[in-house]
Amino acid sequence: METRRKKTSPRTRLVTGTLAAAALTAGTFGAVSASASTPERAQSSAASAASSAVADRNIHQTRHLTVDAATRAAQAALKAAREDGQRVTVAVVDRNGNTIAVLRGDGAGPQSYESAERKAYTAASWNSATSDLVKRLESTPTLKDIPGTLFLGGGVPVAAGGAPIAGIGVAGAPSGALDEEYARAGAAALGAR
Amino acid sequence: METRRKKTSPRTRLVTGTLAAAALTAGTFGAVSASASTPERAQSSAASAASSAVADRNIHQTRHLTVDAATRAAQAALKAAREDGQRVTVAVVDRNGNTIAVLRGDGAGPQSYESAERKAYTAASWNSATSDLVKRLESTPTLKDIPGTLFLGGGVPVAAGGAPIAGIGVAGAPSGALDEEYARAGAAALGAR
Amino acid sequence: METRRKKTSPRTRLVTGTLAAAALTAGTFGAVSASASTPERAQSSAASAASSAVADRNIHQTRHLTVDAATRAAQAALKAAREDGQRVTVAVVDRNGNTIAVLRGDGAGPQSYESAERKAYTAASWNSATSDLVKRLESTPTLKDIPGTLFLGGGVPVAAGGAPIAGIGVAGAPSGALDEEYARAGAAALGAR
Amino acid sequence: METRRKKTSPRTRLVTGTLAAAALTAGTFGAVSASASTPERAQSSAASAASSAVADRNIHQTRHLTVDAATRAAQAALKAAREDGQRVTVAVVDRNGNTIAVLRGDGAGPQSYESAERKAYTAASWNSATSDLVKRLESTPTLKDIPGTLFLGGGVPVAAGGAPIAGIGVAGAPSGALDEEYARAGAAALGAR
Amino acid sequence: METRRKKTSPRTRLVTGTLAAAALTAGTFGAVSASASTPERAQSSAASAASSAVADRNIHQTRHLTVDAATRAAQAALKAAREDGQRVTVAVVDRNGNTIAVLRGDGAGPQSYESAERKAYTAASWNSATSDLVKRLESTPTLKDIPGTLFLGGGVPVAAGGAPIAGIGVAGAPSGALDEEYARAGAAALGAR
Amino acid sequence: METRRKKTSPRTRLVTGTLAAAALTAGTFGAVSASASTPERAQSSAASAASSAVADRNIHQTRHLTVDAATRAAQAALKAAREDGQRVTVAVVDRNGNTIAVLRGDGAGPQSYESAERKAYTAASWNSATSDLVKRLESTPTLKDIPGTLFLGGGVPVAAGGAPIAGIGVAGAPSGALDEEYARAGAAALGAR
Amino acid sequence: METRRKKTSPRTRLVTGTLAAAALTAGTFGAVSASASTPERAQSSAASAASSAVADRNIHQTRHLTVDAATRAAQAALKAAREDGQRVTVAVVDRNGNTIAVLRGDGAGPQSYESAERKAYTAASWNSATSDLVKRLESTPTLKDIPGTLFLGGGVPVAAGGAPIAGIGVAGAPSGALDEEYARAGAAALGAR
Amino acid sequence: METRRKKTSPRTRLVTGTLAAAALTAGTFGAVSASASTPERAQSSAASAASSAVADRNIHQTRHLTVDAATRAAQAALKAAREDGQRVTVAVVDRNGNTIAVLRGDGAGPQSYESAERKAYTAASWNSATSDLVKRLESTPTLKDIPGTLFLGGGVPVAAGGAPIAGIGVAGAPSGALDEEYARAGAAALGAR
Repeated sequence: METRRKKTSPRTRLVTGTLAAAALTAGTFGAVSASASTPERAQSSAASAASSAVADRNIHQTRHLTVDAATRAAQAALKAAREDGQRVTVAVVDRNGNTIAVLRGDGAGPQSYESAERKAYTAASWNSATSDLVKRLESTPTLKDIPGTLFLGGGVPVAAGGAPIAGIGVAGAPSGALDEEYARAGAAALGAR
Repeated sequence: METRRKKTSPRTRLVTGTLAAAALTAGTFGAVSASASTPERAQSSAASAASSAVADRNIHQTRHLTVDAATRAAQAALKAAREDGQRVTVAVVDRNGNTIAVLRGDGAGPQSYESAERKAYTAASWNSATSDLVKRLESTPTLKDIPGTLFLGGGVPVAAGGAPIAGIGVAGAPSGALDEEYARAGAAALGAR
Repeated sequence: METRRKKTSPRTRLVTGTLAAAALTAGTFGAVSASASTPERAQSSAASAASSAVADRNIHQTRHLTVDAATRAAQAALKAAREDGQRVTVAVVDRNGNTIAVLRGDGAGPQSYESAERKAYTAASWNSATSDLVKRLESTPTLKDIPGTLFLGGGVPVAAGGAPIAGIGVAGAPSGALDEEYARAGAAALGAR
Repeated sequence: METRRKKTSPRTRLVTGTLAAAALTAGTFGAVSASASTPERAQSSAASAASSAVADRNIHQTRHLTVDAATRAAQAALKAAREDGQRVTVAVVDRNGNTIAVLRGDGAGPQSYESAERKAYTAASWNSATSDLVKRLESTPTLKDIPGTLFLGGGVPVAAGGAPIAGIGVAGAPSGALDEEYARAGAAALGAR
Repeated sequence: METRRKKTSPRTRLVTGTLAAAALTAGTFGAVSASASTPERAQSSAASAASSAVADRNIHQTRHLTVDAATRAAQAALKAAREDGQRVTVAVVDRNGNTIAVLRGDGAGPQSYESAERKAYTAASWNSATSDLVKRLESTPTLKDIPGTLFLGGGVPVAAGGAPIAGIGVAGAPSGALDEEYARAGAAALGAR
Repeated sequence: METRRKKTSPRTRLVTGTLAAAALTAGTFGAVSASASTPERAQSSAASAASSAVADRNIHQTRHLTVDAATRAAQAALKAAREDGQRVTVAVVDRNGNTIAVLRGDGAGPQSYESAERKAYTAASWNSATSDLVKRLESTPTLKDIPGTLFLGGGVPVAAGGAPIAGIGVAGAPSGALDEEYARAGAAALGAR
Repeated sequence: METRRKKTSPRTRLVTGTLAAAALTAGTFGAVSASASTPERAQSSAASAASSAVADRNIHQTRHLTVDAATRAAQAALKAAREDGQRVTVAVVDRNGNTIAVLRGDGAGPQSYESAERKAYTAASWNSATSDLVKRLESTPTLKDIPGTLFLGGGVPVAAGGAPIAGIGVAGAPSGALDEEYARAGAAALGAR
Repeated sequence: METRRKKTSPRTRLVTGTLAAAALTAGTFGAVSASASTPERAQSSAASAASSAVADRNIHQTRHLTVDAATRAAQAALKAAREDGQRVTVAVVDRNGNTIAVLRGDGAGPQSYESAERKAYTAASWNSATSDLVKRLESTPTLKDIPGTLFLGGGVPVAAGGAPIAGIGVAGAPSGALDEEYARAGAAALGAR
């Protein structure tokens, strides 16, 4: 999952809060909002105002599914479930444990939402299908007490280059085996050419 | 949002926990999962085993966006933001306050996820854009203390037949006006022929 | 639970935040409040100001117990318990997992409130009595780790047309069998002519 | 609200966990449940097995609305709102801050549930209508930061003998003044002969 | 625990938010605070201004330990533990589940605080020692999933007149048997002449 | 608050989990409990089995009120309030933010419990009375957004040797000035000879 | 922050839960634990067993501070505070909102821990110093209602290549200006050669 | 862990909120921040203005790891894991249950953060390695239901003078035995000369 960044440029610039105050105070009541990602150009100009830099050795990189890929996977899982007449929710969680996409299928039970998220989180954490992780509880039953996890079939990991990058979780079908089948259909959509 | 159900059939059947025990106990460790929505056929046979019925006057109906519609709206909002070089998260919440779909755009800030959900929730609750609701705080500043809400531009309601059925929330752009623009692009996608 | 809406009118109107600003800013400090459901007339006029529409294919419907029906069911359950000299709390939760009604019986223990809600939630999620769901834990013990659930006798589902529309949960009697008996008395009240 | 208990009997008996073990271990898997209030007879026999007693001076009493009264009040509030074409949720909270009854009106917005509970809680805490309490924020704005409260019109206290015993909260109408009108209709139902 | 109030006076007065506005708006920034219990005299005058009344049949009463009694019990439990060289926390919870008193003993482990509260809550809920309740898990293992409970020795109920009025919980000693011994020492202090 | 420990002994022993397994596995179902503080003798023998040591320079010390002192302070505050006919809750929190003692006065409103704890926490955090801290909000209004705090009169710090060691919070009187008066009565009890 | 991954290899392999069951079930009670990151070798062999692949276009990358860099920054901030005789807590949060490192300085107040985390989170979200963000509240006061944020001086962003990659938050000094000074000392340590 | 403070000075001074108001109200918008620990000098002068004192018998002391020691231990644990090619998170929690330091290793799974904190908390609570505590669950399975704990190998206690002062928790390696090995490497670093 982690790859040390190679030394294309010896060091990148450090920016510490140099966004122009003019930009920050502009606008009327309610007009300025939760803006996190300034467009590249604004950032570039801000960066040029900064004087320090983060040494490259201080940085490592992680890989993530794009939102388009995550959506495509979730839709593929929903479609597979629908073809079986099943009503499920699908969630895609990245390796940092943050949810990228959730789609609540029409008529899926209320418990399916958080179940799907937790299955995806669990699969991404251990880089293993939750149906396999259930077996670990035989020897280590308290594994399931880790906050945020759910040891129930229906979660599958997504890996790239041998390292976990995401998890897909499905919940709402009458069995974990079915849920997992749909989750795998979602994962399969990521390798389509 | 609510329509009293007309009397096509005088009463529908009441089912109280009649799913066959055989189905419930089948399977191996980990094989049975979070299954809420039994397929139609199973439900029909279960219903036939039931002897009581819910009188129609006890039932009302609510309308919801399908997951396909919600996904299409979210994707349209993301696309509009991307064309502006903005990184945002989009959420669609139904009139019951439950999230139907969330898509976290690539590179959107961490605060955008819950912001988007809350803006959508707020717009669906008052059937009004959050940019308009912000103005209500001048006379009633404590409105914003209601749990789950966020009075910040970027949330727009979706209505059908004059009643609210959902809310779309966008967060992550540098201003609430931009966030709202993308949310409206999402809403527009719902009326496409 | 879900019925695709038939095509009476080809499309319904889309309203996005068009409530008149005049209405929004009126009132004095503290005078305007948490108002979600604008009366029909106001909504109609607002709708007439809207120019777009939600295509019908984007909408599905769900059925709910009316609050009157839910209250009647809860009162019937309380009455049955009282006749046995039992002190219980009764909750009615809809298929979306939202609580419609809770009545805390006189002298019911403090733990009965959330127990009743969770039993109702669990029964509505799986469309099955919680006493039956307990048996599923033999093969799938981690089912009970799904947030919001409680696998303890006393919850019964309410269905209409073969699909779950609500759950009734009772807690506080000395056994789950008794709790379930009262919950069924509540469900029975829904079919009364 | 509090009345020191007069000395009918010099001391009542102390019972510390003497429920017969036989009763506790009986039953099958899932058959014994969340039972808090043992029937009077069982309690009497258990009490007779106890050897110590709580001195009367250690006890004080609090008054509560019965669940029947709370339900009647909530229904009266709902009815008043319905006659105005408003969709609201009503909550009744006792002086200890515990919710006795909640009824979510058909079509009430999702934010109305917790709003109603908090308004009721706030009115019961200060024995004052929340529309009056809003005025206190002018001199003490941080009052509203107390957890569980909501300083928004729509909550009214219920008192008996000059002391607060409950609060009724309504949420969902377009103004706090309307919400309060319905809450007062609920309170009025408690004095009906 | 519950006693229907007898008819000394046919009805008591209903007060709904009539505290004088003058009193409410007085004070300077920060000078008015979280004031719930208005002194008796103020309440009396407020009551005299009220025109409606709560019918007696709408009221029931619950008994509680006074704070002095609860403190004495907690101190007795702490003393018993100290004499054994044990470091514990003691909590007293009323039958409504609300904590009356908590004393964290010097050097008690961090986990003892919430453990003591939950043991007290559990004992008060079932009117039974938690060491007895643990045995119920053999037949009903999911009882322990009820929120707020802890099925671990060290909690004992306090009853009066055959009904539960409180629970005392102790945590921090090396065994539940020891914890319970100290909790019983606390309960014993309530019957002392 | 912090004093570097002087070098009486050059190093103290490090114990890492050497409690005898025999002791840990002894007991029957439910017999072993939440035991944090092993008696001194057991600890001594365990320590003698350890081979490493914590260098003294790795250790600093913090001062705390004893539970007896905290209880005495809380009782003094309650007594002062009672003499005024006020119903309040009192909390004592240490400089680490952990609650040492809480006493809920008879008839105190439900909101007073958490209010008292937060006032005590706030006073202990800034080593200042909350009535003074309220004034800081004029220049820094967002100070009050720090989780766990409450900027409302009624909290006073307790210091020793010029450093904060605890906070006392009172809530429930009609004004913060009164609450603070009772809190100071509590603090005064700590200096009594 | 985001860089589309270049096409060194046309596609990387997809692994979906193929960790050998043998490895998963090995070990004794308690011996297998929360293991997320399988060593590289194991992952490689697992990967070789997988048959599908994630298309490169589905992946984007994010940059993070290494834990060594985050620790160095936090220690530099602590050192700067200590030289001023200030007691603070320092937190470093990545652009995904996850905490990388927290160091609670000796004697820092209890409120400083979560304050530091939230300041770092806020700075990383908007790529701006929290002292600048405070100014935005003049035009958009509800920005501060976004969950997880704290608009109080003492948080500075860390950027690389013009995009935010982390935030550093300091809390506990008598002013936000001082807190920010220490946070900047921390950021400066990241560019040191 | 606790040592009664010996009688160097008969009593230390009590300070109750006497920080000069001038200091409190100084500064501009956003300039004054979360300042808990006033520098020693300011505290001394404040103390001199105080008239009462905390009697020494009211005070006891607890020992803590310094933040430098905790950081060194955490880094030693991370280093040991890295040498094995393992990716883990390390947490150090003091005997009061408060976290002193957390370092999330590069590439550690998302579940490792809270796992590490809970293991450290558990070890500090019982002064025992979590691998030993797991064995206690055989006789007392509900021990693991105590909030904040995690009974999974990887947590080790740190003691001084025979009493627990902290816990170190590691999570993320494929087995609890490995996690514990790294935690012990961290503990070993505390005794280094």
